[in-house]
Amino acid sequence: MSKNLKYYYDLMSQPSRALWIFLEKTKLPYEKCLINLGKGEHLTEEFKAINRFQKVPCITDSQIKLAESVAIFRYLCREYKVPDHWYPADSRRQALVDEYLEWQHHNTRATCAIYFQYVWLRPRMFGTKVDPKQAEKYRAQMEGSLDFIEREYLGSGARFIAGDEITVADLLAACEIEQPRMAGYDPCEGRPNLTQWMARVRESTNPYYDQAHKLVNKFAQDTASKAKL
Amino acid sequence: MSKNLKYYYDLMSQPSRALWIFLEKTKLPYEKCLINLGKGEHLTEEFKAINRFQKVPCITDSQIKLAESVAIFRYLCREYKVPDHWYPADSRRQALVDEYLEWQHHNTRATCAIYFQYVWLRPRMFGTKVDPKQAEKYRAQMEGSLDFIEREYLGSGARFIAGDEITVADLLAACEIEQPRMAGYDPCEGRPNLTQWMARVRESTNPYYDQAHKLVNKFAQDTASKAKL
Repeated sequence: MSKNLKYYYDLMSQPSRALWIFLEKTKLPYEKCLINLGKGEHLTEEFKAINRFQKVPCITDSQIKLAESVAIFRYLCREYKVPDHWYPADSRRQALVDEYLEWQHHNTRATCAIYFQYVWLRPRMFGTKVDPKQAEKYRAQMEGSLDFIEREYLGSGARFIAGDEITVADLLAACEIEQPRMAGYDPCEGRPNLTQWMARVRESTNPYYDQAHKLVNKFAQDTASKAKL
Repeated sequence: MSKNLKYYYDLMSQPSRALWIFLEKTKLPYEKCLINLGKGEHLTEEFKAINRFQKVPCITDSQIKLAESVAIFRYLCREYKVPDHWYPADSRRQALVDEYLEWQHHNTRATCAIYFQYVWLRPRMFGTKVDPKQAEKYRAQMEGSLDFIEREYLGSGARFIAGDEITVADLLAACEIEQPRMAGYDPCEGRPNLTQWMARVRESTNPYYDQAHKLVNKFAQDTASKAKL
């Protein structure tokens, strides 16, 4: 088990939070390596030597440098003795987890992140203006993903995305769906299945879920307070 | 081995070609189910019952309905006795294949497909006009992905994306990179590593590679002929 695992992350990054919650919850031995995206620490030559993609999250251990959250999840579940439910050995269930993990790239991940960046992050970082029509377009795309999850993944009474137990798919999904809350969008409104499932993911992984989302929750609250003024 | 595997595909779809080449090369027993995207056969209620995402490729067998090419590749490599090199059991090598499979979604796949659709497909299907500035922007994004592959994945003398043997990552990558040729873009020009690697992928999988790309090659030739007029 001693692989000298180092985890590079920033909790403002959605997949960074998902992996951090997983590492804490499963109590894997690892070294915390904070990379502050806001300060551009991922753009240094020093970090490039660790991760050629210059993104977080990523890991290093005695045998590998690895990027891409989904690849990292699979690697950790294979290399460490984590409870099977996270990434089931059963071939059919594993395939259904994989299907979500691949689908989310151009759906949950892309649409929630683009909305958040356009409405909240870019105006703050670069002073860009928000065109309401463009924001509405991005919002509709995001709602397409969220409605699909509400209806197709959670519509048949499933407790989690790939069955009755929590998997890495739930972690990646929930952390992504928390992100637009900072931009004043409530993903749970009008989506009872998603609401209950989000609560279930949180309960299953607390106190780590709340710890990972501390800053997200603060920003979401700030945005909500300003909207009331 | 008898799972009653059915494969739903259209060879105009890049990941459909990748999986078709794999199925033919490994001689897995499967039933060919053609879904003509041009005729909208993926949009019928009948097909929705097979694949809720209403996309190709997808498979069904005795135990599962499965979409998402990467998830399908993993499932087939796990369920059937295919040569190990396609998706190595060795944890480190598997992780490096996975890293590419996840990276490509927002890079090779997104950028080559968007360029192809904007410059070639949408004008033909919907009569849209091509704005040269927008085309140039999409082209630059695509070239970013191709240059990264040239430099980072193939720059150190690697024969394939994840080492000295062909994996499913090479199949997905090469089939994606063939696509913009139909729009008159030569991905090999100025990229010697990529040129040699493309030839290697083709040689390793022929006659199936050429069979899968028959229509792509025809359209690429048509575009090239028109450009000369």
